[in-house]
Amino acid sequence: MKKISILGSTGSIGTQTLDVIAHAPERYEVVGLSAGANVDMLVEQANRFKPQIVSLASKSDAETVKPRLPAGTKVAYGEEGLIEAAAGTDADLVVTAIVGSRGLPATLAAIRAGKAIGLANKETLVTAGHIVMELAKKYNVSILPIDSEHSAIFQCLNGESREAVKQITLTASGGSFRDRTREQLEGVTVAEALNHPNWSMGAKITIDSATMVNKGLEVIEARWLFDVTYEQLDVIIHPESIIHSYVEFADHSVIAQLGLPDMRVPIQYALSYPERSPTPTDRLKLAEIGKLHFREMDYNRFPCLRLAFECGRAGQSAPAVFNAANEVAVARFLKGEIAFLDIENILETVVGKHVAADVTDLQMIAEVDAWARRMAETV
Amino acid sequence: MKKISILGSTGSIGTQTLDVIAHAPERYEVVGLSAGANVDMLVEQANRFKPQIVSLASKSDAETVKPRLPAGTKVAYGEEGLIEAAAGTDADLVVTAIVGSRGLPATLAAIRAGKAIGLANKETLVTAGHIVMELAKKYNVSILPIDSEHSAIFQCLNGESREAVKQITLTASGGSFRDRTREQLEGVTVAEALNHPNWSMGAKITIDSATMVNKGLEVIEARWLFDVTYEQLDVIIHPESIIHSYVEFADHSVIAQLGLPDMRVPIQYALSYPERSPTPTDRLKLAEIGKLHFREMDYNRFPCLRLAFECGRAGQSAPAVFNAANEVAVARFLKGEIAFLDIENILETVVGKHVAADVTDLQMIAEVDAWARRMAETV
Repeated sequence: MKKISILGSTGSIGTQTLDVIAHAPERYEVVGLSAGANVDMLVEQANRFKPQIVSLASKSDAETVKPRLPAGTKVAYGEEGLIEAAAGTDADLVVTAIVGSRGLPATLAAIRAGKAIGLANKETLVTAGHIVMELAKKYNVSILPIDSEHSAIFQCLNGESREAVKQITLTASGGSFRDRTREQLEGVTVAEALNHPNWSMGAKITIDSATMVNKGLEVIEARWLFDVTYEQLDVIIHPESIIHSYVEFADHSVIAQLGLPDMRVPIQYALSYPERSPTPTDRLKLAEIGKLHFREMDYNRFPCLRLAFECGRAGQSAPAVFNAANEVAVARFLKGEIAFLDIENILETVVGKHVAADVTDLQMIAEVDAWARRMAETV
Repeated sequence: MKKISILGSTGSIGTQTLDVIAHAPERYEVVGLSAGANVDMLVEQANRFKPQIVSLASKSDAETVKPRLPAGTKVAYGEEGLIEAAAGTDADLVVTAIVGSRGLPATLAAIRAGKAIGLANKETLVTAGHIVMELAKKYNVSILPIDSEHSAIFQCLNGESREAVKQITLTASGGSFRDRTREQLEGVTVAEALNHPNWSMGAKITIDSATMVNKGLEVIEARWLFDVTYEQLDVIIHPESIIHSYVEFADHSVIAQLGLPDMRVPIQYALSYPERSPTPTDRLKLAEIGKLHFREMDYNRFPCLRLAFECGRAGQSAPAVFNAANEVAVARFLKGEIAFLDIENILETVVGKHVAADVTDLQMIAEVDAWARRMAETV
């Protein structure tokens, strides 16, 4: 019985993780759940899975849910509550599915507590890859990627020597606006941007997919997860999202992972690793799909991806600034404050004003994060 | 330094194996070579690679080449010579690249001598899969597949548990006549049949590719190599031959191996396994290829594949009969004795007349093989 704590249990990845767990109650036990403000869903999840602890963002919400929780489920709140849900249980695996950079301290706490990490919070490695991977190594903890691209790469590397890796290619669907020119992006609506062709995901990641920021964050994450250089990382447009990513080895042999776009496969893989077990998903039938398309990434059409590579290569504080500025810019777009193309403009401007500096702890990262947010709010 | 003996060194796989070896003389040493009647090429190879032994089919050819060989290279001939080249050297790996069922006794001898097998002779497992795999297990010898499909599957299974395998799908280009109807196959010429769209291979295998017999033999071979049932084996048409085959696991995750169609990649993999090392081949660029196509196998269009599955399921002597009848039928087609579609007719007829029986040794296999050949000559 593998014990699991889920940070961000009411979001897209969180609910799908619980779906996977619900299909294999003999293999998994939920010991911790954390949510932001979605009180009703958290209460429902707690009553179904009976965790040791639940955590909410605010003290008032925590007090509200208390009487609605099953006997034996403790409630906590805030940053401390999140850390307790991550590190204060007997979980074997902590799924970090919180969107944004808030998940970082809890992730580090879980690593220090010796827990394997099912990493769905990509900002963790983007902003603090050097700190997280070093800590994971020190505590001999596995970082198991939960997103389709990194899970694909992780699977392709199964049984292979890392020294034999020549190149890693992440596939990108191209997002909601793949077939539009830059001119056609003027004045697009929030609703249009949220209409992703292949994946049903949260709002933030769907926008990040349309701007290609998502792929940029994944490139930076891959650099840390697989200990490769940016020269070894490549992105290709693959509209069908069937090949989830691939690895080329020294002998020019390419290993790829394929499947229907369904996050429950990478979730299940992180949960059951190193084993594989049945998922409640549909099988891939390539003959029914018929055709797979590929084309070169266009870095002029998607300048945020170029910027992500630049920030990745600059290293130090640059990726954290890129990430924080993007969080603010996307939030402003979703609120209707700015146009879609302004997301790029804000990123370019904020990154352009930043001088990369070494960030050796979370405090320093929090400072550049706060600076970037302030800048992104006012551009 | 890995020592290698090549049975069938003047054929398509044999020469490409020597090409791979020539690119990494610091890693590989050739200790044995065998050929049929291509005396001049064998002499050239022997003078370049200086093996301990060479073997030819006939005594007269062996005597002819003797004075043309380098000092220290012994010459042998016939069935015994082949066995000596396979088992009588200090080779670590024996590449069995002889076309047809003649390679079987030498392969068994090499296994008994504890040598890893680079298996390019697919008839070995088709006619005697049960004997070969049992012997390989007994002598703890690796059978390393050298053809693009089985090498792909073998690579996809790297680091994976065999119990987690749900389905193995072999890809088929469709061969020279992929886009023709059965009616359009009436009266096709030998030259047309030999014009394979993707692979440059020997004549026999190119014809087998057009009749889909080749894929049928591969299905039977896969059953033995990967210890799966025929229900776990599937074939899909993939005209570009870029995905060389793929494996679906219990979690519906699919791992595929891709590359440009170049046999030197699977050859190199068998030679360097479990390591990977650079091959003298071009890199796969999916964006340049642009599209990959897939469609269901049509068992009415390719009845030989259906027949291969039937023979595989029947087991015992049936696959050996299928294989031997096909060897004769293809030879008759290449000689201009019969039409292309007669290959199918001969196979159907000979297999139809055969009653499958247990074959527990090479003598029994040789008998059904001889029976099937006699039948196929006279249909």
